[in-house]
Amino acid sequence: MPKEGVKLLDMWASPFGMRAKIALLEKGVDYETQEEDLFGGKSDLLLSSNPIYQKVPVLLHDGKPMVESSNIVAYIDEVWPNPPLMPACAYDRARARFWTHYIDDKLFSGGRDIWLSKGGEELEVAKKEFIEILKVLEGALSDKDYFGGDSFGYVDIMTIPIASWFPASEKYGNFKVEDHCPKISAWIKRCMEVDSVAKIVPEGEKICGCVAYIRKLNGVAEE
Amino acid sequence: MPKEGVKLLDMWASPFGMRAKIALLEKGVDYETQEEDLFGGKSDLLLSSNPIYQKVPVLLHDGKPMVESSNIVAYIDEVWPNPPLMPACAYDRARARFWTHYIDDKLFSGGRDIWLSKGGEELEVAKKEFIEILKVLEGALSDKDYFGGDSFGYVDIMTIPIASWFPASEKYGNFKVEDHCPKISAWIKRCMEVDSVAKIVPEGEKICGCVAYIRKLNGVAEE
Repeated sequence: MPKEGVKLLDMWASPFGMRAKIALLEKGVDYETQEEDLFGGKSDLLLSSNPIYQKVPVLLHDGKPMVESSNIVAYIDEVWPNPPLMPACAYDRARARFWTHYIDDKLFSGGRDIWLSKGGEELEVAKKEFIEILKVLEGALSDKDYFGGDSFGYVDIMTIPIASWFPASEKYGNFKVEDHCPKISAWIKRCMEVDSVAKIVPEGEKICGCVAYIRKLNGVAEE
Repeated sequence: MPKEGVKLLDMWASPFGMRAKIALLEKGVDYETQEEDLFGGKSDLLLSSNPIYQKVPVLLHDGKPMVESSNIVAYIDEVWPNPPLMPACAYDRARARFWTHYIDDKLFSGGRDIWLSKGGEELEVAKKEFIEILKVLEGALSDKDYFGGDSFGYVDIMTIPIASWFPASEKYGNFKVEDHCPKISAWIKRCMEVDSVAKIVPEGEKICGCVAYIRKLNGVAEE
């Protein structure tokens, strides 16, 4: 384990790893990544630095491990304060943490319920619930360019990596986010043009390939 | 709705409400509470200020609502910085947030699985899992007086309200936390002597009465 510098234990498709990488790029922090084989064997470094959850991402800063992506991004924002990712005002910070909680609670699992569903009624319920989750988020975004206002910030960093998995939900759910939530759809396009996001977030096609693999592992038949 | 001051929408037995109240007492902040009838009808103020989750606690500060207890305590710590509840060092802060995540993920639900179980194998599994969760926490506490070291702080505030529900898990699980996790047991006694905790945390007997009521609502028979 390198005792100095910043190292991220990661898996390229993990939306939670993407959060940490986008935050590090926004701050201009040099880092190296170690790709983990989540479906094969995890590294000893991952198991020893996140013994309870054994998940990526883990951020090692001068050898000290941090886990949980929202926690990692908060740490990055504290240690490298410029440019700030969190809003300056305590109330706005509380709102940002609340939306992060909502996203962590609902958004990824909502999309996953679609591409892990076996079709029929189960799929229709999953789609309906996912679109409701998105509409709540669209209400929070409202007419702003980004969740925090005029500039790309903390809640955007929390959300856009998860949005990078939407193409898989759209593919297996046979719907378009744009048809239900045009403001969220425009926000995704806007974020994808931010340098750090463009560098980190993979193409929808690659994510769909990863999801096809996870579906197979979970015994969900391919059409 | 009062536009000035601090008001907490609460339910006396809620461990999450207790977190906010202990934090406010630690900071010496005057506040009023509004007791919610969670099993009857929630107030319009609760429904309008936490429309997504419709849960207590909600902290209204000068009329502005904040929800989610760890978020509320973080806000209190930012707006009234003395005495600080979170550690000063960014790494220790990340550790504190991680343990809060672990506690929110596992501890209350682990204890609830015992007192909502219908007995037999289900109860034995729930007990075994809860004791494992506690042992992980005991490892984090180690030989320190409090989770953060020598003084009562953020992680203690997150945890002790949930520990106030342990008597119900012990009663319906027919075991003693002390027999499995003596350090956690000693830490509970130590926290109960902290002024703010002593003022806020109800007696185990009262919590057991509340749990008996919830068991009945959930169709779990009383012995």
